[in-house]
Amino acid sequence: MPASAPIRQDVARSASRSTGIGILGATGYAGVELVRLLSAHPGARVLALGSRQDAGAPFSRVWPSLPAVQRVLEDETTAPEAWAERGVEILFSALPHGALADRAGAWLGTGIRVVDLSADHRPGRAEREKGSGRPAVYGLTEWCGTDLDRATLVANPGCYATAILLALLPAARSGWIRSEPIIVNALSGVSGAGRAATLTTHFVERIGSAAPYRVGEEHAHLAEIAATLGHVAGTTPAVIMNPHLVPMARGILATLAVPLARRLELEEVRAVYSACYADAPFVRLLDEATLPETRWVCGSNRCDLALRLAGGGHLLLVFAALDNLMKGAAGQAVQNFNRMMGLPETTGLPLTGWSSG
Amino acid sequence: MPASAPIRQDVARSASRSTGIGILGATGYAGVELVRLLSAHPGARVLALGSRQDAGAPFSRVWPSLPAVQRVLEDETTAPEAWAERGVEILFSALPHGALADRAGAWLGTGIRVVDLSADHRPGRAEREKGSGRPAVYGLTEWCGTDLDRATLVANPGCYATAILLALLPAARSGWIRSEPIIVNALSGVSGAGRAATLTTHFVERIGSAAPYRVGEEHAHLAEIAATLGHVAGTTPAVIMNPHLVPMARGILATLAVPLARRLELEEVRAVYSACYADAPFVRLLDEATLPETRWVCGSNRCDLALRLAGGGHLLLVFAALDNLMKGAAGQAVQNFNRMMGLPETTGLPLTGWSSG
Amino acid sequence: MPASAPIRQDVARSASRSTGIGILGATGYAGVELVRLLSAHPGARVLALGSRQDAGAPFSRVWPSLPAVQRVLEDETTAPEAWAERGVEILFSALPHGALADRAGAWLGTGIRVVDLSADHRPGRAEREKGSGRPAVYGLTEWCGTDLDRATLVANPGCYATAILLALLPAARSGWIRSEPIIVNALSGVSGAGRAATLTTHFVERIGSAAPYRVGEEHAHLAEIAATLGHVAGTTPAVIMNPHLVPMARGILATLAVPLARRLELEEVRAVYSACYADAPFVRLLDEATLPETRWVCGSNRCDLALRLAGGGHLLLVFAALDNLMKGAAGQAVQNFNRMMGLPETTGLPLTGWSSG
Amino acid sequence: MPASAPIRQDVARSASRSTGIGILGATGYAGVELVRLLSAHPGARVLALGSRQDAGAPFSRVWPSLPAVQRVLEDETTAPEAWAERGVEILFSALPHGALADRAGAWLGTGIRVVDLSADHRPGRAEREKGSGRPAVYGLTEWCGTDLDRATLVANPGCYATAILLALLPAARSGWIRSEPIIVNALSGVSGAGRAATLTTHFVERIGSAAPYRVGEEHAHLAEIAATLGHVAGTTPAVIMNPHLVPMARGILATLAVPLARRLELEEVRAVYSACYADAPFVRLLDEATLPETRWVCGSNRCDLALRLAGGGHLLLVFAALDNLMKGAAGQAVQNFNRMMGLPETTGLPLTGWSSG
Repeated sequence: MPASAPIRQDVARSASRSTGIGILGATGYAGVELVRLLSAHPGARVLALGSRQDAGAPFSRVWPSLPAVQRVLEDETTAPEAWAERGVEILFSALPHGALADRAGAWLGTGIRVVDLSADHRPGRAEREKGSGRPAVYGLTEWCGTDLDRATLVANPGCYATAILLALLPAARSGWIRSEPIIVNALSGVSGAGRAATLTTHFVERIGSAAPYRVGEEHAHLAEIAATLGHVAGTTPAVIMNPHLVPMARGILATLAVPLARRLELEEVRAVYSACYADAPFVRLLDEATLPETRWVCGSNRCDLALRLAGGGHLLLVFAALDNLMKGAAGQAVQNFNRMMGLPETTGLPLTGWSSG
Repeated sequence: MPASAPIRQDVARSASRSTGIGILGATGYAGVELVRLLSAHPGARVLALGSRQDAGAPFSRVWPSLPAVQRVLEDETTAPEAWAERGVEILFSALPHGALADRAGAWLGTGIRVVDLSADHRPGRAEREKGSGRPAVYGLTEWCGTDLDRATLVANPGCYATAILLALLPAARSGWIRSEPIIVNALSGVSGAGRAATLTTHFVERIGSAAPYRVGEEHAHLAEIAATLGHVAGTTPAVIMNPHLVPMARGILATLAVPLARRLELEEVRAVYSACYADAPFVRLLDEATLPETRWVCGSNRCDLALRLAGGGHLLLVFAALDNLMKGAAGQAVQNFNRMMGLPETTGLPLTGWSSG
Repeated sequence: MPASAPIRQDVARSASRSTGIGILGATGYAGVELVRLLSAHPGARVLALGSRQDAGAPFSRVWPSLPAVQRVLEDETTAPEAWAERGVEILFSALPHGALADRAGAWLGTGIRVVDLSADHRPGRAEREKGSGRPAVYGLTEWCGTDLDRATLVANPGCYATAILLALLPAARSGWIRSEPIIVNALSGVSGAGRAATLTTHFVERIGSAAPYRVGEEHAHLAEIAATLGHVAGTTPAVIMNPHLVPMARGILATLAVPLARRLELEEVRAVYSACYADAPFVRLLDEATLPETRWVCGSNRCDLALRLAGGGHLLLVFAALDNLMKGAAGQAVQNFNRMMGLPETTGLPLTGWSSG
Repeated sequence: MPASAPIRQDVARSASRSTGIGILGATGYAGVELVRLLSAHPGARVLALGSRQDAGAPFSRVWPSLPAVQRVLEDETTAPEAWAERGVEILFSALPHGALADRAGAWLGTGIRVVDLSADHRPGRAEREKGSGRPAVYGLTEWCGTDLDRATLVANPGCYATAILLALLPAARSGWIRSEPIIVNALSGVSGAGRAATLTTHFVERIGSAAPYRVGEEHAHLAEIAATLGHVAGTTPAVIMNPHLVPMARGILATLAVPLARRLELEEVRAVYSACYADAPFVRLLDEATLPETRWVCGSNRCDLALRLAGGGHLLLVFAALDNLMKGAAGQAVQNFNRMMGLPETTGLPLTGWSSG
């Protein structure tokens, strides 16, 4: 065997500065993407990994796809002070909804800034739901302005909410939306249901099957969509959302039918969306002949959008595709991290998808 | 709704009489289902099979899944007289759109009755499109009344159109629909795109991907939907239809959002749908807690429906699932055949799906 | 090979007599196939269904794919006497391995005959393993001769064992096998792992992945294979078995490399296999140009076989495909039932697969 | 919208030196991986892309997953001189087998070095097969020693051959292999069959199906396996190879049963393999408890290996998994490029797989 250079996935790490990172919920589907992205991120040093179920095992034994990550998983109920002392400056939590809420204050009290991928700190939660009550920046990156710069607690948006809001906000802010309900149909890969083994996520129950669930006004993401529409666009149109599980591992495809207050031309609509996302590296407006496909975004941090008019110009159709584990979870969390740290927004984040897979 | 016979899966084969059958396009995905169903049908004798590409080969070499069907495939341009002389009384054509139109008259001229699974004889075709111009009964079986009894030419509905019309007609006929557009989102398995090998149907391009296509007002099935709504319910509400290919072999899941002219209660809606399909053995109204899944209908001739209200009772959501090759094609063709022959509607047709697969 | 009745798919239901059936484990993947097959079987009346987890619910709520089966599920620990009094004559048990062993005697004591789909009564079990110790007929139907006629306890073979033994027994009985180990590689759909929700059966862990497991000499089916080779062919060659999970719901494909004691010609091999299965309606020897595919057998009770010679005629390759839930479980159980009752072997069992799905 | 940094996927490109790259067959499945890897490679500048079918279109219109690659595709029959003048120093050809053979000399004549991903220049081709006849280095990187340093023509190995040879060469070179045939069973994702739309690659024909093909001694890769075994290890044991298509997009899983000349202990075997690949960053020997899964390597350039003994230590089982488009095609081509250019072997190549997808 010839000699070979040592493995160095992350070249040219800035000698001057990289941020200490801790990750809770590191072995779930969003967690492993955080580990993958941040381990190769030139502005990050992953210092600690926590897991509910796999504490004590090396990460690479749980996820052999990442052979270089041999750090031993710690108990997720670790004391924040211990991680702070070891240099953790930013905590990413991919724990299930409700698991971090009680402890968020303890983490923040150490000076560690927190990016919470669960629903616990997102806007619009009902009173009865668990949440820490602490104010958080809602990290829909493209619409955050400078709020992220000094944020100490970021609520990372839901995967459906990200797709739907990126599709809807330019129209909402333009005052185009009529008071009739917006109809959203959305398709999700099974990783959106999490890594817990249930009958719903059993291979045999999902392969070959399309299945709607929590339809109409039932889905929890509607609350953060409504709150954000109100906050950003000053309008809260009714939204009907019909999510469906389809037999693929990842990807979200949202199809929106938006009743318009006046007749529009496609050119005008495209101009507004183009201007709106002109500086957004991860939002792509497809050309007029192209509709998005989830395989074009999976593996990337992009959200692809397409626009069509129907009903004689009185109905706007918007199609949005993203990878629920990337732009819909871990990717957007890293995008938020980049902004929190003053790094270029695209640092360590792929623009390119897998093409086939 | 016409009265319909009770379900009897195993009817004693009438000793006195079975009908001679010919099938064109026998090796496509709908064709092979026709062969499978009719070969085991107690009221049918399959006498001749035609194929564009596989003429000269025994059927079971092309489709080894049907070992008992060893009949040699004939050229699809066979002379109708020859098949008539051999005893063919009913021709099922699963040829591609446009392929039968020119020859339909020749077949009918021999006295053979024709069930055409292509779009050639469906209502609502534009002038420029190919069609034979001959009058046909639109074979949406549950809504045909006695039209099928003496029909000589039956236009078998499209797969999407079947799901959407079964979901919509009870509401339309009740006068509930407001003038705003109905939004239909539909998911289809890849067999809906036919057996022709194209980049679109390539395994690697489809697995892991959800992809909208021909959205808004583009899909050809909208014409037969509009024509049938007008004919049966005397109303032609605008319909927006967004079809999506998802990575499964078969199955259609249609999700309809129907704006209502007045506020309704779910009880009232369920009562109307229940009454409408009380005698329809292949339409099932699911209980209030259940939404349809395509795996529950695949392999069967059923269409499963679910009903929900949203928007404070002003928006009706209807969910419909069927197997595009069964109730959406070959199964409905056999259902129509049963009615044409005066057989119990369920003869030779499975009510039960595959459960897993 | 015992003589076997010709294929008659639709047997007139005997007016005089049908057998009372009880099914335990009715909502697992093999169980639901038993329910589906036996509910439509002209010689069976399904009188009672038992389930571990779903007791109290109507069967069709658990499996909406079978709308006609509305019988309420009973607790699986039901008293055998109660079912006997209600007319159950044959019990099919699709309970997990070990669950029936302690109670088998109680069931048999009532006079009910038992077909056990678990491993509990199969030959070759190690001493330490749980089993009832009662003598059972090993129900590899094609090789049972008349043993099934009066059997009171039938051990239904494992899915892998069925494929491998059907592929191997003709060669073994012919004395062709050299003492070197036979190498078997086998692929299985995920339903073979059962319906229990585990990380292994999670959709996201299986889609896109091929994974060997329990390789070499570890798999439990090797014991029943060895015992049957000894019993039927008087020889016990070493067998290495490498099973793999592949991302499909059902189907087994076994590929065997069999070292030969002498050089053979393909013609001779084919003649022996043809003769051996001449009266076996569910075993098909494919022509020389064709290799089996699981999609051709899924949904049917068939096992398709193909034969090739390599190594200058000194190595026999056998390829076997079957549906693990049909010929590998529920279908073979019904085939055994037919033989136990003196019915034609093919009664109520499909010879035809799904073609696409 | 906040301002955001421009997209810079390939940071810190060496100002001093990067190599000009041309790619033929750029829109096939291996081609698009070459484009993806080399566009982000710090030692490469992609200057020209050629395509059979898509000439004239921007690459990103054919593959919207790579939005940043907007270069217009050129005709694949382009004159080598033109590309040489534009600075192309290395040509990667992912054209189909036979397509480059006649023109290889013309490319080499311009001084451009060629990495050919087709079979045209691999060893062991039969006389009748098309090939350019020019001497090439067989680029199984880990076994090339210093041959790649000055190579002008590299024959990139086949995907099956790569997996099988990496699994077999340490044992072969150790003189352990007995004269009996080695039995290889291999599973491949459908991308291995190429992007041409055929009935074999149709989604509906592949989903849910496992299918052997070109079994025994038929597969073309056997020739390069035999030639390489002879060249590297001085031995040419008989190899039986049974490839199977399984329903996944990418990945190869090879399972080898290797008869041993003497009884071995696992410890000894592991020591030899470990030593052999100690300096190979992309070959991982899994621990004794772990078997490889294709999902752990897909997206990476790794080949994962596992070792087991059976038959009382007389049979070695080797399991190898790789991504057929990465280590089995484009990834290994880039690995070879790195060695040809004196770059660290891992430059621009992912060690980490996708985890889920």
